[in-house]
Amino acid sequence: MQDGEAGFTLSKSRFEAFSDGVFAIAITLLILQVNVPANIPDHPTRQKQLEGILTIWSQYLVYAATFATIGTMWLNHHALFRYVERITHGIVIANLLLLGLVCFLPFSTEVIARYGLTQVSVVYYGLVLTAISVGYFILQRQVMAAHPSVDRRVTSWNLVGLSFYPVAIVLGFFVPVLGVVICGLAALFYLLPRSVASAAIRP
Amino acid sequence: MQDGEAGFTLSKSRFEAFSDGVFAIAITLLILQVNVPANIPDHPTRQKQLEGILTIWSQYLVYAATFATIGTMWLNHHALFRYVERITHGIVIANLLLLGLVCFLPFSTEVIARYGLTQVSVVYYGLVLTAISVGYFILQRQVMAAHPSVDRRVTSWNLVGLSFYPVAIVLGFFVPVLGVVICGLAALFYLLPRSVASAAIRP
Amino acid sequence: MQDGEAGFTLSKSRFEAFSDGVFAIAITLLILQVNVPANIPDHPTRQKQLEGILTIWSQYLVYAATFATIGTMWLNHHALFRYVERITHGIVIANLLLLGLVCFLPFSTEVIARYGLTQVSVVYYGLVLTAISVGYFILQRQVMAAHPSVDRRVTSWNLVGLSFYPVAIVLGFFVPVLGVVICGLAALFYLLPRSVASAAIRP
Amino acid sequence: MQDGEAGFTLSKSRFEAFSDGVFAIAITLLILQVNVPANIPDHPTRQKQLEGILTIWSQYLVYAATFATIGTMWLNHHALFRYVERITHGIVIANLLLLGLVCFLPFSTEVIARYGLTQVSVVYYGLVLTAISVGYFILQRQVMAAHPSVDRRVTSWNLVGLSFYPVAIVLGFFVPVLGVVICGLAALFYLLPRSVASAAIRP
Repeated sequence: MQDGEAGFTLSKSRFEAFSDGVFAIAITLLILQVNVPANIPDHPTRQKQLEGILTIWSQYLVYAATFATIGTMWLNHHALFRYVERITHGIVIANLLLLGLVCFLPFSTEVIARYGLTQVSVVYYGLVLTAISVGYFILQRQVMAAHPSVDRRVTSWNLVGLSFYPVAIVLGFFVPVLGVVICGLAALFYLLPRSVASAAIRP
Repeated sequence: MQDGEAGFTLSKSRFEAFSDGVFAIAITLLILQVNVPANIPDHPTRQKQLEGILTIWSQYLVYAATFATIGTMWLNHHALFRYVERITHGIVIANLLLLGLVCFLPFSTEVIARYGLTQVSVVYYGLVLTAISVGYFILQRQVMAAHPSVDRRVTSWNLVGLSFYPVAIVLGFFVPVLGVVICGLAALFYLLPRSVASAAIRP
Repeated sequence: MQDGEAGFTLSKSRFEAFSDGVFAIAITLLILQVNVPANIPDHPTRQKQLEGILTIWSQYLVYAATFATIGTMWLNHHALFRYVERITHGIVIANLLLLGLVCFLPFSTEVIARYGLTQVSVVYYGLVLTAISVGYFILQRQVMAAHPSVDRRVTSWNLVGLSFYPVAIVLGFFVPVLGVVICGLAALFYLLPRSVASAAIRP
Repeated sequence: MQDGEAGFTLSKSRFEAFSDGVFAIAITLLILQVNVPANIPDHPTRQKQLEGILTIWSQYLVYAATFATIGTMWLNHHALFRYVERITHGIVIANLLLLGLVCFLPFSTEVIARYGLTQVSVVYYGLVLTAISVGYFILQRQVMAAHPSVDRRVTSWNLVGLSFYPVAIVLGFFVPVLGVVICGLAALFYLLPRSVASAAIRP
């Protein structure tokens, strides 16, 4: 990815509009994976109806954690591109890779919806989130390669966040629900005023 | 959420583009919950075909009420942000919370599609709408905290609207269809020229 | 809907962005109603596989006709709003009504996918398209009420288009496939250079 | 399509916003075709769960190849329209045709998800991609007709890309998985710095 030499300059506004669109759609599609259990009969009793919306509490949890994660991702993406003046070829490739991974999230929530909170489903979920973090890390590298003045702390903060997911995977292997909770906390961590404001956002 | 000190300033245009995108997608996904009943056979008679599109009148009603609600929500959101000059950290968090609740609406319409208009499904629907109203209320507080000059009447009108949903829940407990109608009326109430123009929109 | 007195002025750009988003999503969701028949077995023979993608030719036809219709709708919407300088309250309401009807289209294509091209499904499809035309007509009225200088021919051309759908419904009652073809032709009619350019678009 | 005479001039920004929206949604909907196999039971064993997410490796491959293809398409679209100063009627029609074909892609991935990687499904996939290339070729012609100064090499490069898909179809007929891999490589080919930068993007 020889950014410098190619002289690739994409319009920043259309680049951001496309990325914003993908984030907005991915975050909205999450709800399609929250479903009343298929084994609820056609004309359920009141008892069965209540059961149907209460037994899927784990889907609500996954919805909230994943929504917060994509929201945070968008926020970080936004914060990062405030530094960006020209969209190099490397940034375009890294951004497509990141979006492709973010769009994969609704499938990993479907896996949890289908299997329940199990070792397999939660570890899978954690692996997808780790891949997204790595994708974001690569995107940051490309931004920093093209804009040497970007604050190094942006990357270091990302590393702090990245360390959440391996922990979530390991804990999720033993106590699945804990894995999802940690992933949700990772998103909330980014939403703390201090981290967002002092490292990523404040110029 | 210490807005003031963090000095978080997000680009208003990208913030609005993301919110508009989420509202637009959530409102368009509603139709995916309107479905021909699953018990219609593969090659139905003309009689059965007519039955299939007429027996789901309650889904049409819920579609119309929910579409009007999200449309109103977008309109109010738009009106509120005309006052906004800087996107504080508190506004970002409150906005993500609101969007997460709005995106949850298609699931509550799915519950009605699955159960029919029952005590459980309509009360659930009303509770989600109440949560959205509370989310909007929190967002307004954050906007007003950052912009002290925002007209107090904005909030008072919201309270008028908020009072619809508890009524809808109580009435919906006894006559489910009435609960949905009241929720739809709450949206139409916001669309009245007087309320929108004099309180929320007119500067 | 007392537009004039209310003094409601919405930002035109955000109004258009929301409408564009809804049109773009509705047009993209159409493909979700094109499906391989459910009666194709799990590991189908090559013969069965070919059958699966060829027997749904009517879904391809409906997809093409509906895609052209929403595309035309967006184009006309765009053309109309070139005249618009202020978004009155009446325009907002009429626009939400139109969008609510356009978003309903994916359900009417689902009805055709479920029933096949039958009297019931094609007449239903034609009725939804007629409702959209009426919705567009109302929107035009609101635009013209707020902008008296808008060319009267805009409306007259719409009437030409509107006359297609009743014909499609009547013909579709006797020869269903013809009903869909006429609806598709109505969209193509609007895409003719002369009609779009001389009446609706050229200022 | 008599562009010149009609004098049709659409706002470029709204034209691009609509196209970006459609690309963004089509690319995000792809994940809805990646699904855990239906034959996985309700409370699967750990073995069965792993099987469910590993046996669908071909769906991951198709997801990656198609995501790269639409991403490339958007990028090329963007690059092409940097040359465009006025949106003629012919460009509008050709663009709607292209978008209609791009939106069809999620169905061709559904066919692969349903049939597996077979002769029929992969040839079908290749044919849809060929149709998209032809659609893009027509769009380029319309742009060049309206803007004679556009570099001829834009078209010649497209022809290089176009030649991938017939190869993919022929190879896919004998070794289906190879067909999808070639389609993915066609997208990666466009993402090479040299091709994008020197022919399509660099003014």
